[in-house]
Amino acid sequence: MGTSDNSGKTTHMTRRALLGTGAIAGVAATLGGPGAAAPRAMPDSWDEEVDVVVIGSGFAGLAAAHEAQKAGASVALLEKMQVPGGNSIINGGVMAVAGSDQQAEMGIEDSADVMLADMLKAGLDLNHVALARTVAEHSVDVYRWTVDELEVEYKDRLTHMGGHAVPRAYSTSNGSGSGIIVQQLAKLKELGIEPRTRTLLKHIIRDGDGRVKGVEVREKHAFRDPESGDPRTIKARKAVILATGGFGNDPAFRMMQDPRLTDELDTTNQPGATSEALREAINIGGILIQPSWIQLGPWTSPDEKGMGMAPSFVQGTTASYGVWINTETGERFVNELADRKIRADAIIATGNKAIAIADATGFKYAKGRGTKVDRMLEAGVLTEYATLEDMAAAHDVPLEPLKATIKRFNTSVDAGEDSDMGRYLQADQFKLVDGPYYAVRLLPKVHHTMGGIGINAETQALDVVTGDPISGLYVAGEAAGGVHGASRLGSCATTECLVFGRIAGQNAAAEENWG
Amino acid sequence: MGTSDNSGKTTHMTRRALLGTGAIAGVAATLGGPGAAAPRAMPDSWDEEVDVVVIGSGFAGLAAAHEAQKAGASVALLEKMQVPGGNSIINGGVMAVAGSDQQAEMGIEDSADVMLADMLKAGLDLNHVALARTVAEHSVDVYRWTVDELEVEYKDRLTHMGGHAVPRAYSTSNGSGSGIIVQQLAKLKELGIEPRTRTLLKHIIRDGDGRVKGVEVREKHAFRDPESGDPRTIKARKAVILATGGFGNDPAFRMMQDPRLTDELDTTNQPGATSEALREAINIGGILIQPSWIQLGPWTSPDEKGMGMAPSFVQGTTASYGVWINTETGERFVNELADRKIRADAIIATGNKAIAIADATGFKYAKGRGTKVDRMLEAGVLTEYATLEDMAAAHDVPLEPLKATIKRFNTSVDAGEDSDMGRYLQADQFKLVDGPYYAVRLLPKVHHTMGGIGINAETQALDVVTGDPISGLYVAGEAAGGVHGASRLGSCATTECLVFGRIAGQNAAAEENWG
Repeated sequence: MGTSDNSGKTTHMTRRALLGTGAIAGVAATLGGPGAAAPRAMPDSWDEEVDVVVIGSGFAGLAAAHEAQKAGASVALLEKMQVPGGNSIINGGVMAVAGSDQQAEMGIEDSADVMLADMLKAGLDLNHVALARTVAEHSVDVYRWTVDELEVEYKDRLTHMGGHAVPRAYSTSNGSGSGIIVQQLAKLKELGIEPRTRTLLKHIIRDGDGRVKGVEVREKHAFRDPESGDPRTIKARKAVILATGGFGNDPAFRMMQDPRLTDELDTTNQPGATSEALREAINIGGILIQPSWIQLGPWTSPDEKGMGMAPSFVQGTTASYGVWINTETGERFVNELADRKIRADAIIATGNKAIAIADATGFKYAKGRGTKVDRMLEAGVLTEYATLEDMAAAHDVPLEPLKATIKRFNTSVDAGEDSDMGRYLQADQFKLVDGPYYAVRLLPKVHHTMGGIGINAETQALDVVTGDPISGLYVAGEAAGGVHGASRLGSCATTECLVFGRIAGQNAAAEENWG
Repeated sequence: MGTSDNSGKTTHMTRRALLGTGAIAGVAATLGGPGAAAPRAMPDSWDEEVDVVVIGSGFAGLAAAHEAQKAGASVALLEKMQVPGGNSIINGGVMAVAGSDQQAEMGIEDSADVMLADMLKAGLDLNHVALARTVAEHSVDVYRWTVDELEVEYKDRLTHMGGHAVPRAYSTSNGSGSGIIVQQLAKLKELGIEPRTRTLLKHIIRDGDGRVKGVEVREKHAFRDPESGDPRTIKARKAVILATGGFGNDPAFRMMQDPRLTDELDTTNQPGATSEALREAINIGGILIQPSWIQLGPWTSPDEKGMGMAPSFVQGTTASYGVWINTETGERFVNELADRKIRADAIIATGNKAIAIADATGFKYAKGRGTKVDRMLEAGVLTEYATLEDMAAAHDVPLEPLKATIKRFNTSVDAGEDSDMGRYLQADQFKLVDGPYYAVRLLPKVHHTMGGIGINAETQALDVVTGDPISGLYVAGEAAGGVHGASRLGSCATTECLVFGRIAGQNAAAEENWG
C-alpha cells in the first residue's frame, strides 16, 4: 500500500454508474450495496469468543489492542486491508506534545491549556472541549509511552507546525507514521497479537437489551467487493472497539455531507478510508457528529496521485521562501502560512488556478533539507523555468501583474513586513530574484474527516436516542467525531489516536464480562 | 402557543442538571431519557390501521395529509403538541416563488434557475442540488395550489428579500404563516381529517425486511415528559411521512453538532422544535445529513423571549435606514443587509456587543409602516434617548468613535455609496441627524436547522447503510436535510415545506399496500 494507490476509484465509479435511481438528489450515493439496514439479530451460536474485538489497525486500533491485552483481556485485532497500518502508516509521523522535557530544555513554555487553545482556535470553537482537552492533557504521557513502551525513535528537533503557538511536534526518525506503526506491530507480536488482515467488519451485533455483544465479519475479504469473504461471528465478551478511521476516500458518503467533494477530487488517504464501518455504527444506534467538516490538504498537486511529493516542497519551501500565485490575476491570494482550512478554501476560490513558486535560492534550500526535488522534476510535479517570463507563459499568468507581485514581495522582505498578506517572515528570508524559477500546480485533496461517532472522554460511543453510552462499544481515532471541530490542527491526530486508543483498550478490558 | 413561549427551557435544564455522567465531553447531552435504542419489533397486533401516517402538522405535514387523502388514502395525522401548526404557524408567512404572473406584470424577469442560483449561493454550494432545484421548479405550482385549493390570501406587493436576486416573495395577508396553516386545517377538515394533538411519535417500526410498517405513539401525551401518555400502535399500510420539523429548540442535540449553541442561547422556534423524531428516524437507519449547519437569526433581541418584536424594527428599519454599532468600538461591523449567516456571525464576533440604531426619522418611518414601536418601547426592547450622548452613555459606547461613524455614514449617504460597508443604499436614504435616537440590543437566536434526514427528490428517506430509499418512509420539511446547504435563504422554507409535503403525500398514497 502506498500513498498514491488510488486505483479503487475506478471500481467505485463503475458501480455507481450502474445504479442511479435511488441516488440522493444531485449526489451519486450508492454506499454499501443492496440489503436492508436492520441490525443483525444475535446468532444462535458464535464461531469464536474473545474479550475484546478491535476493528482497525492504525495508531488507535493498535494502541487499543496493546492496552487491552496488557490488562489481561484476550483480543481479536481485525483489519480489512491486505496490510495493517491504515492511514497512520502513511502519515507524516509528527505528534503534538505539550509540556515535554525537550521543550523545557529549549526554554519553550507550553502546557495542555495552550495546546487546547490552539486546537479550539483551528476548530472554530466547534470542538467538543472535553475531548480536545483529553488529547492535550495526555500528550506528554502518550509520548513517553511511545518511547518507553514502544521504543519509537524521534528526531532531536521539535517542529513548529502551522497553527501551534510554540514548537511542540516530535517527528519520527524516518519521517513517517510507519516509525510508530512498525513499533506498535512489533510489540503486539511480542504480546501474542497479530492483525488478522483481509477481515471486514460486516455487522456490529447489538442485542435487544441495548448491549453490543459481538461482530459479524468476512474473512479472506477482497477489498472493493463488500460481499466477498467467508462469514464468521465473533463474540466480544467485554467490548468492541471501532478504530476504523475516516471516510476521506469514500466519495459517495463524503458528498452526502459536502456535495462539492465529488469523486473528481483526489485524496491523500489510503484506499481503505471508506465509510462502511461508520455507517454500521450509526445503523446500530451510534450518533453521527459534525460530518460536514472535512479537511482538505492545501499542499497537494493535481500532477500526481494521493499525497505525493508536492507537500514537502510546497509546504517546506514555497510557503516560507516563495509565494503562491493566482494564475488568472498574477497576484498572491492567501497568507501561505495560514491554517489548512483557510489556504484550501482560498485555492478553491481561485477556481483551482493556483501555483506555488520558488526561485533558484529556494530550490537550493529545498535540496539542502532533503526535499526530493529531482524526483519531482522527473515526475513533472515540479517544473523549472529559466525566467519569470517563461513561467508566466507556461501557466497563462499575466506577466506585468506577476512582476509587480514579486516586486512588492521583495519590498516587503526589505521592510521586514509582508504588506500584501501579513505572512510571518523568516529570520533568513530572501528575495525572489534569481532564475531559474520553479512551480508546482496546487489542487487541494481530501485529507481528514473531522466528523464521526459521538463519544465521551472515556471513548464510549453515545446512543442517538438516549445520548447515553452504548454498552460494549468504544470508538477511537478518526472514526470518532468532535475532537477537532471544524478543522484539525496538523500533528494533533497522531496524539489523539494514541491517547484515545489507549483509553479505549483500558476501558474495554475493564468491562464486565456479559457471558 | 406563541413565539415567546419558551418556558420549556427550565425543565430541560433541570433534567440535564440531574444527569451528568454519560454526557458527551463538554456537552450536556441527555437527549431522550433512559432505555436501549434497539428499534421496536413488529407488534403482535396493531391498535389501528390506516394507509398513511403523517407525523407533524406544520406546512409539510398538512400538505402531505391533504395530498394523500385527495389521492384516496386513509390518513392519520399526528401532532405531539396541544395545538397544530408547529413552527409554521408562527413563521413570517413569506413564500419565494420564481416566475409568477405577478412578477411578469411588474416586469421582473425570474426563473427557477435564478432562484436555484440564489439558494446555492446562500448555501455555500453545500446544497443537494436536485432538492433545491425541485423547490425552485415547483414554486409557481405550489403558490397556485395555495390560492386555488387552499384559498390563501396574499398581499398585493411582492417583497425583495435579502439574498434574492429579484423581488419574488409573496406575503400572506395577515403577515404570518398562520395565514396558510389556518386554511390548510380548514380544507383538511372538509376532507375529514383533523390533527390528533398530544400524540407523540415514540417509535418507527421497521420490519426485518427493511420496510417501515407503522408507528408506536403515545396519546394524551404531556409535552416535556417523554414517557407520558397511553401507548398505541398504528399500522401504516402504505407509508409513514415524517414532517416533524427541526431541532432548533433542543439544546442538547444541537450542541452535539455545534457546541457553541448552549441552552443559554434563545431560539425563535416553538417549544416543540425538538429532536426526538429525527433521532428515532436515524435509529431505524435514516442517514443524517449536514447537521452542523444551524442558522441563527441576526435580528433578535436579548430583552425579550423567542422571535419577539425586535425583528420588524431591526430588519425593517435599522438595516435599511439606520446602522448597527459594535458598542465596544463605536463602529459599524457588518453590512446590515448581508445574509443571515454573515450578520449573525458578525454579531457573535463582537462578543454580542452590538446595537441596532435609528434616529427620529427612522422611528417615524417604522411607525408609518405599522411596526409596533410603542409596544416595543413599553416592553423595554426598544429604548429612546434624547441625544447620541445619552445613547452612548447608556450602552457604554465610546462617544467620539460613534460620532465619527455616524458622520462617515452621513457622508456616504451624500455620496450615494456606503464607503464603510458597501451596503445597498435606498432611493430615499436619509442621514442620521435628528434626535431622539432609538436602540435595540442585538443577540442572535437559533432559527433553522438545515440538517436532517437525507432524502431524494421524491422525499424518500435514504438508508445509512445502503444509500437506497427506506421502503415506506418519507421525510419532508425541516426534518429533511440538504435542501439549503450551509444557510437557508429567507422565504424559501415555506415553499420547500409545501412542495415536499405535497410530493410526500402523493408518493405515499401511490405506494403498494403491504398488508
